[in-house]
Order: sequence, then C-alpha cells, then structure tokens
Amino acid sequence: MRITIAGAGAMGSRFGLMLHKGGNEVTLIDGWPEHVKAIKEHGLRANYNGEELTAHLSVELQSEISSKEKTDLIILFTKAMQLDKMLQDIKPLIDEHTKVLCLLNGIGHEDTIEKYVSKNNIFIGNTMWTAGLEGPGKAKLFGDGSVELQNLISGEEETAKKLAEILSESGLNAKYSNNIHYSIYRKACVNGTMNGLCTILDTNMAGLGETKPAHDMVVTIVNEFAAVAKFENVNLDIAEVVQHVETCFDPSTIGLHYPSMYQDLIKNNRLTEIDYINGAVSRKGKKYNVATPYCDFLTQLVHSKEELLKAK
Amino acid sequence: MRITIAGAGAMGSRFGLMLHKGGNEVTLIDGWPEHVKAIKEHGLRANYNGEELTAHLSVELQSEISSKEKTDLIILFTKAMQLDKMLQDIKPLIDEHTKVLCLLNGIGHEDTIEKYVSKNNIFIGNTMWTAGLEGPGKAKLFGDGSVELQNLISGEEETAKKLAEILSESGLNAKYSNNIHYSIYRKACVNGTMNGLCTILDTNMAGLGETKPAHDMVVTIVNEFAAVAKFENVNLDIAEVVQHVETCFDPSTIGLHYPSMYQDLIKNNRLTEIDYINGAVSRKGKKYNVATPYCDFLTQLVHSKEELLKAK
Repeated sequence: MRITIAGAGAMGSRFGLMLHKGGNEVTLIDGWPEHVKAIKEHGLRANYNGEELTAHLSVELQSEISSKEKTDLIILFTKAMQLDKMLQDIKPLIDEHTKVLCLLNGIGHEDTIEKYVSKNNIFIGNTMWTAGLEGPGKAKLFGDGSVELQNLISGEEETAKKLAEILSESGLNAKYSNNIHYSIYRKACVNGTMNGLCTILDTNMAGLGETKPAHDMVVTIVNEFAAVAKFENVNLDIAEVVQHVETCFDPSTIGLHYPSMYQDLIKNNRLTEIDYINGAVSRKGKKYNVATPYCDFLTQLVHSKEELLKAK
Repeated sequence: MRITIAGAGAMGSRFGLMLHKGGNEVTLIDGWPEHVKAIKEHGLRANYNGEELTAHLSVELQSEISSKEKTDLIILFTKAMQLDKMLQDIKPLIDEHTKVLCLLNGIGHEDTIEKYVSKNNIFIGNTMWTAGLEGPGKAKLFGDGSVELQNLISGEEETAKKLAEILSESGLNAKYSNNIHYSIYRKACVNGTMNGLCTILDTNMAGLGETKPAHDMVVTIVNEFAAVAKFENVNLDIAEVVQHVETCFDPSTIGLHYPSMYQDLIKNNRLTEIDYINGAVSRKGKKYNVATPYCDFLTQLVHSKEELLKAK
C-alpha cells in the first residue's frame, strides 16, 4: 500500500519505519530541512528496542513536494498548529480514493481536515505508542503501544476496520473503535492536565503528583473536559478518567518523564499545542455556553510563558 | 508615645525608624534572631534616601519578650501567616488602652486580630510606603509614601484620626479614611494579580504586562475580588482598579521590580502570603457562594510551587 506520513517527527518516524518494515511503500513528509536531508542521505536510522536499524524510505521536504502520484493512505502526525499548512501542502497527493487518518494529540482536528478532505475519507484515532528523536534522521523507539481508530461518518466502518488491519500487519496493534471520541477525550484529559501543569510549574509528572493541590487541579480540569464532551454526546466517566490521569504520577512507570509540552517549551523553546488541548476546551465551552475557567487560565498562562521565553 | 512595631522586617523597620526620629519611644519586635541581634549590637542602620543613618532603638526577639510594660500603640507588620503567633507572643504588652493598627498586605486580618484585641481598639489600614532589607539590621528606604487608616467599628473615628496625626508627625503622611475596606481591596487587587502571576510565570511586572494574555487575566481576577467585596458592601470600580493595577506594568516606574511574593518564593525560598490574598478571596467566595476559579487555581499553583521548591 502507498502510505504517506505527513509529519515525520518522532511518532511519524515510528509509524513510517514500522509500516515500511511491514512491506508498504512509505513516503515521509516533514518540514524540518535537516531531518529530511539526513534521511535522504543516510536513511532513517533508529534505535529500535535496542537494535540499530536503517530504513531507506522515500522522504520529501514539506515545502518542496515534487511527487504528483496520489497516495492510498495519509497518516497525519504533525504538531497541531502545523496541521492546516500540512494539508495545504499535501493537497496534490490526495484524490477521491485517498484515506486520511488523523493521529494527532488534542481534540477537534476533524474541523480542520474537513476543509481539505471529504468526510467519508476521514478517519480519526489515537495511539499509545511513544517515540523520541535523538537528532535529525535518528529515532529512538522503545516499548509497546496500540492504536484505536474510527471512521468520522457512519457508513465507513468496513474501511476503518481495514485500515486497522493494515496497521496491525506491520505490528502497530491497531483496533477499530466504536467510540473513538471517548478515547480521544480521555487521552486529551491526560494532556490537558500533565502538559500544562508540568510546564507552568517546571516539574515532571511525579513531582506534580507529590504536591497537595495536584489532585484537586486534575479533578477540576477533567470536569471541564467532561462538561464540553457531554455536548458532543461523549459521557466521560470522570472518576475513572481522573484515576487514569493520575497513573502518570507514578515514578516507577512514567512519572519521572517531562510531558511533551514541557519538552517543547521549556527545553526546546518551541510554541506549544495548548490551543488544541485546553484551548480547544475553552473554545468549545464558549460555543456550548459552559464555563471552563481552569482551561481558560491554563491556556493564558502557557501563552504568556511562550511569549516570555520568546518561543518559536 | 510608646509604640511597638510587631514585625520589624523592611516595612516595620521603616515605620520604626521614622517614628523614632519623630520622638516616639519605639520598640521593635521580630522573629529573626540575626536581625534582632544586629540591631541590639549596632542599632538599626538604614540608607535613608541616600543618607546613612543609625537609630538606637529598643528591640526584642519575638520568642523572648521580657518587657511587661504596656504599650500605647502596636503596629502590626508581620507576614500574614505569622500574624496569629505574633499576637500570642505580644499579649503581655496589650491592655485595654492599647491600640492595634494592622498594616499587613492582604485581606481579612481583622478576623485574626479580634481573637486577641477588643474591636474598639482595632484599626486597619494600608500603606503605599516601600522598603527593603539589605541584611540583618540594615534597611534601604527610598521614596515617598502614605498611609490610610480607619477604626474597625464605629465610634472610634476620633481615635483613628488621632493615630493618623501621630504617624504624620513623624512624616508618614497618614490620613483617616472613611472607606478603608475599599482601599484594602483595591490594593489587594494589585497583590492578587502581580504577586501570583509574576511568581508562577517567573517574570517581573513589565514582562508580564508585555504578554498578550496579561490584561484578560488581570480583568478576570479583579472581577473575582470585586464579586466577593460586594458581599462586604465594598463596590469596587472595576475599570478604575484594573487601570490602577496595570500601572505596575510600566517599566519606567516600578515595572522592572519583582513583586514581594516572587522575592519570597523564587528568590528566598520562603512560603508565600497567597492564602491571605487570592486564597482569602477563594474562602470568601465559598462563604458567599460566589465562583472564584482564577483565585482558586492561582492559589493551588503557588502552593504547588512552594512544595516543589521546598519553601519554608
């Protein structure tokens, strides 16, 4: 199958590598010139569960896409704020048969994708795989993961199941979900608490979890996510989601990690995805007339911090 | 007049020094042993508008108060969280004639003072004087300021005016106010925005003011202060207060300063007064059944930061 990975950072590289190893014709597209150049010259290199691999797969710089051949499947893996521009740039690769699977963090990306792709071809999902980049062209891929995905509109269930099969054939452990919005909101609650709070408080997740106010802050934020989700017919089990979120505090599992937003802003001085996590809940809150003050305030604090650190 | 300064940090030192220069019999009481020792040995030294002064005034360690002589006036200048303990420790100095003037930052201190002093002897106020400590026994006192004060219960107006006169005779520029709660809330709005936001965002006031979300955050927080103040018959002019608060952003006046909470927590690793500023609004909000989510969240964030930095 001809598969395009649109956004070949850490996670895009993992999916590209695994789908390539699984026998698909994979093209990576990314906006980072050094990364694209390194892959072109040396292949995509990876420490894959301890084994050093090199995969020679096709790669193109997002701003210089030359291929006009249509692709069967596009997997979107950009940063949230780069999604719209990516869709503009990969337009030449899309025709009426091209399926588009969105695996970005955050909520509400389908609103952006619908501007470029017909709804029957849009599939949304999320993933529990992790990945890291050690530098241009070099990924670090450890551990196990999974994917859940679903068709955006009804009638495309079989195609969604087919896509899950294709991913699973390459070891990506993908499953069809009949309630993907629940999974997406549930995962967004993890990002909507750990990301912003650890970034603003300059701590890892275990450190946050040890502070007395952490639990109440998590509960309040999850309640705000649940309040807007309800208007989209997603009824979060708040107690279960809070418990799920708070497993992140455990220092013996992932608690000592700094969440991706911390890495983006504090470590790498990059703009964050806050507008697509807590900021998205704020916007939905305004739309549905639901108060979301913790999400509002956390979004403002993170944006202020971006400005103070002159993040780009 | 026999005047006791209970809490002789930077501001207490200023008031003590000026009242001493003005001919009063001043005793400083403080809980910091090195500071008390330095004043005992060398007098209270100060850079007073550029002039080096030394004032030999009486000083006692809070935990070892030996004097049993009653005092005419006690001016309270502790950190908010030290107020209750200070009142316990200075009990021997108080009789039915002793007036107690509270000039602490924050709101609601009268609830604590009433446990130890009869209401007719309680006077509350605030001050626009500034002060700094360069080290034990050494103050840095620049610029001008003023004091406003009022009796806590009606019937004591004349005494309040008399107290203002006594302070003014020593150059403290004090005035009787007939609406001190308004002034206290108005000043608390400055502390309730600049202190917590600059502390959490690790910036000075000008830096905060340059960020796009700053204005909306200030407006929301001031609205929460106004909402609880209303239940205490204080009707804040929100637009005026916001404008007043935002003069702090001006780098040509005080914008380049880091607020006191920043100095306490980030610079000196000390616990903050957040419970007596935003935290007090949160408690009042619960009491009056008014939502105060920004004050709740900011209080939680500052407490988390205190724990993360192991502040004492």
